[in-house]
Amino acid sequence: MHEIHPIGVIRSPHQSIESMPIQPKGAAEVTGQLVVEEQYVEGLKDLEGFSHVYLLYSFHQTRRTELQVIPFMDDQPRGVFATRSPLRPNHIGLSIVRLQAIEGNCVTIQGVDVLDGTPLLDIKPYIAKFDGVEASTSGWMQASDEEVKNKRSDERFK
Amino acid sequence: MHEIHPIGVIRSPHQSIESMPIQPKGAAEVTGQLVVEEQYVEGLKDLEGFSHVYLLYSFHQTRRTELQVIPFMDDQPRGVFATRSPLRPNHIGLSIVRLQAIEGNCVTIQGVDVLDGTPLLDIKPYIAKFDGVEASTSGWMQASDEEVKNKRSDERFK
Repeated sequence: MHEIHPIGVIRSPHQSIESMPIQPKGAAEVTGQLVVEEQYVEGLKDLEGFSHVYLLYSFHQTRRTELQVIPFMDDQPRGVFATRSPLRPNHIGLSIVRLQAIEGNCVTIQGVDVLDGTPLLDIKPYIAKFDGVEASTSGWMQASDEEVKNKRSDERFK
Repeated sequence: MHEIHPIGVIRSPHQSIESMPIQPKGAAEVTGQLVVEEQYVEGLKDLEGFSHVYLLYSFHQTRRTELQVIPFMDDQPRGVFATRSPLRPNHIGLSIVRLQAIEGNCVTIQGVDVLDGTPLLDIKPYIAKFDGVEASTSGWMQASDEEVKNKRSDERFK
């Protein structure tokens, strides 16, 4: 067992699970803020040089776990670890967002696909040398960019 | 507060922090296994179609937090959220690895940059449509691919 504590909160215009974009790519123009607890502000030093960051956060409105889920972009049940569904063990979410500005304890980000009030667990820089994947295959995920961009959440993961 | 529980354990040839590759790119040929607890095996369905997965894991041998650290690829202190150092609040690590095979509760992966026995918290598919970053800047991180590949860990994060 490992206890985790939020380092801050994510502010976004998304007030409810329904109608939320399902991934940052569907929220490309959506701006939000990371409000970092004062005790951690020193850890933000040097972050401004990065264009993108990973956010780790808690799927705080989803507490049940299901091992098979029907993803938004599909019509068949898939193993939860082959999806980005919140119904996973440990309920930790991962998004890559664009970094816009840092002022004190407030980090402005773009491409926000999480609910307002989401507990923030970590910020990590996206480093192309570490994280760049040149050629990948994406199994069941066959949707077009356009479909991902336009798809909105519904109540299935409440 | 949010309690998290491992879904399994990561097996790797790296027995100690010293001399470990610092990122998957420095461990490109290193094979390891995710040994997933039996109760979660059903969640692995459909994962085999993906070439790459994100692993979330616990930096279990590092329990202290420092807000400024000197990263392996640098010689100046940087804010911990601008680094991938384990000395971060919540001590959660993130790596992208290549998926090789799944047999029962055992997932063979390539590009393992974590210690043997690391508690596994989550597996997420890498989906180029969600996660691909086309142009990014990486702040202080100026090392060449060759330097990242050859760099090895030391005792600083013990």
